[in-house]
Amino acid sequence: MPVIVPLEEIQKALRTIDPLPLIEEGFVAYSAGRVVVPPVGEMIFENPPGDVHIKYGFIRDDDLFVIKVASGFYDNPKIGLPSGNGLMLLFSQKTGELEAILLDEGYLTNVRTAVAGAIAAKYLAPRHVRCVGILGAGTQGRMQLEYLRKVKAFGEVIVWGLDNEELDAYRRDMEALGFKIKTTLEPADVASAANLIVTCTPSKKPLLRADWIRPGTHITAVGADTPEKQELDSAIFKKASRVVVDSLRQAESRGEVFKALAAGTVRMSDVVEIGRVIADERMRRSAEDEITVADLTGVAVQDIQISKAVWNALRLA
Amino acid sequence: MPVIVPLEEIQKALRTIDPLPLIEEGFVAYSAGRVVVPPVGEMIFENPPGDVHIKYGFIRDDDLFVIKVASGFYDNPKIGLPSGNGLMLLFSQKTGELEAILLDEGYLTNVRTAVAGAIAAKYLAPRHVRCVGILGAGTQGRMQLEYLRKVKAFGEVIVWGLDNEELDAYRRDMEALGFKIKTTLEPADVASAANLIVTCTPSKKPLLRADWIRPGTHITAVGADTPEKQELDSAIFKKASRVVVDSLRQAESRGEVFKALAAGTVRMSDVVEIGRVIADERMRRSAEDEITVADLTGVAVQDIQISKAVWNALRLA
Repeated sequence: MPVIVPLEEIQKALRTIDPLPLIEEGFVAYSAGRVVVPPVGEMIFENPPGDVHIKYGFIRDDDLFVIKVASGFYDNPKIGLPSGNGLMLLFSQKTGELEAILLDEGYLTNVRTAVAGAIAAKYLAPRHVRCVGILGAGTQGRMQLEYLRKVKAFGEVIVWGLDNEELDAYRRDMEALGFKIKTTLEPADVASAANLIVTCTPSKKPLLRADWIRPGTHITAVGADTPEKQELDSAIFKKASRVVVDSLRQAESRGEVFKALAAGTVRMSDVVEIGRVIADERMRRSAEDEITVADLTGVAVQDIQISKAVWNALRLA
Repeated sequence: MPVIVPLEEIQKALRTIDPLPLIEEGFVAYSAGRVVVPPVGEMIFENPPGDVHIKYGFIRDDDLFVIKVASGFYDNPKIGLPSGNGLMLLFSQKTGELEAILLDEGYLTNVRTAVAGAIAAKYLAPRHVRCVGILGAGTQGRMQLEYLRKVKAFGEVIVWGLDNEELDAYRRDMEALGFKIKTTLEPADVASAANLIVTCTPSKKPLLRADWIRPGTHITAVGADTPEKQELDSAIFKKASRVVVDSLRQAESRGEVFKALAAGTVRMSDVVEIGRVIADERMRRSAEDEITVADLTGVAVQDIQISKAVWNALRLA
C-alpha cells in the first residue's frame, strides 16, 4: 500500500529539511539532458470553468518517477473551497509500484517555485544585498522571502502590491517572521531601493521599466508562465549582461524571454539555463555592477525533486 | 481527504454490482462525441525495462473525471512482483477535488475489457449460443467467460491454449465456477465447435483462419491493441456482414481492423462503433446465419465508467 501524506505532514516534513540541494541537482540534470519530461497532459472544463494539468517525468537512472496533477477551478471560492488543488504521485522507477501520494493541494508547486528563486539569487545576486524588492504581495511573494533568507543575508525588504490592505496584511505576516518590511504602491520605488528584485505577479503588462533598473541589480521573474503574462519591460534585457532561464525550450514559447525575443532585445544564443549556471561558475555574475535577469517558468524536474525531498524526509524519519 | 480503496475492496464492490450498464452508457457517449479523451501520456524505462501509460478523460457534464496510471515492468516476476500495476484517480468535475484512489493494480482494466466483450456478445452474437470458444487460457480468457454468462445462456465452452498445463489449470478453475470446459491445442477445433468466439491472446500472427469460420458465428477480438498484434486472418472480414469496433479512430492505427484495412478486406466506411450498435438496433445482427466481428482495442471511457461503477457502489454502500 502506498503511503498517503496529507498537507500538514508535508509542511511539517519541509520544516525539517532543506530542499534546495535536490532542486539544484534537478536543474543540473535537466540542463545535462538527463531528465525525461513528456508533454503536459491537459483537460479543460467549461461548466463550472476549470483546468487540469498532468505533469510527469523522471531523471534517468534515478529511483523514482513522479506524476503531478494540478487543477484550477475558478468558481471554487464561491462555495468556500480554494481554486487550486493537486497532488503528487511517487512511483518506483525499478518496479512501477506506487510508493507515496503527497496530497499537497498545490503547496509543493509554490515551494519549488520559491526554492528556484532562492537558487537564482544564490548564484546571480550581487554579493551584498542591501534591500530585497518583491513585486506581488500574495502567497508567492511571501514564500520567496522565506526561501531567500536561507541563501542570502539582507537587511530591508520593499514590497509592491495592488492596494494598502493587501500590503498591510503582507507586512503583518512577514514582520511576524522577523523580516523588516517597507511597502509601496509604486513599482519604481522597488527598483530604486532594491538590488535583488523578485517579481511574482500574474501581470499581463510590464511592471518594471528598464530605465528604473540600476547597475548591480539582479531580477528574478517567476510570475509569467504563459505566452500572455509579462512583468518586465523587454528593454531590461538590453541592459542585462547575463540572462538565465530554467528551460531554454520553454523560454522560446512563454515568459519574459519569449516577449523579449519578440521585441528583439535578446537572442536565444545569449540565454543560458540555470542548470549550467549552477554547474559552471563562469556562467555566474562576474562583477558587482552588472545587471542580471533570471526568468523562471517552472519545469517538471522541480516537481520531481521537491516531492522526492519530502518523501525522503518522511521515509527516513 | 480522498478515499483510498485497496484491490480487495474493489473486488468486493464489483461482486455487488453490474458494471455493464455504465460501460454501455460510456460507449454510447463516446460514439456520440460526448467523451473527451486527450492523447495518452507515456514514459519508457530501460533499466530495468518498463513502461507507464497515463490515460485520462471525462464525459462532458458528468460528475467525475478519471486519470488512470498503468505500468508494466517485465522483470518484476524475478523479484516476486506482478509485472502489471496501476491505479485510477477519480476527481470531481465540479471542483477538481480528488474523491477516490482505486488501487486496482490493473485489475479494473481486465474487468472493463471483459465487460466490453460481454456487451459485444449481447448485441452481436446469434440468439442461440450452443458453444462458446475462447482463444487464450490466461486471465482475460477466464474473465471473458465470467462476464459473458451475465448476458448469454450457453452450454459448453471450448478453450484453446498454448499447452496442456495451462489448459488443465483453466479447466480446473472454470469448472469450479460452474462452467463446462473442453480444451484443445488446435484453434480449428474452436472454430468448428463454437458460434461465439472470443480471442484474448497477445499473438502477433493470425490464429483463426477465414475458411474455418462457419455461418452464424460471432467473433470478438480483444487481444490485439497495438499495430503489431493480430489474432484474426484478415480474410475473415470479407466473410463478415457486420464489423464493429470500440473506436473508429483507434481502429485506423491498431488491432484487427488496422490489419484488414492494409490487406484490403475491409473499408472504414463498413465499420461501425459499438456505441452506435448499442443505441440503434438496426446496427446489430439481422440474421442468424451472418458472420459478425467485433474488434476491441480498449478506450479510456471504459476506464472512466468502470471506476465510476466501483466508486458509486462504495460511496452509496
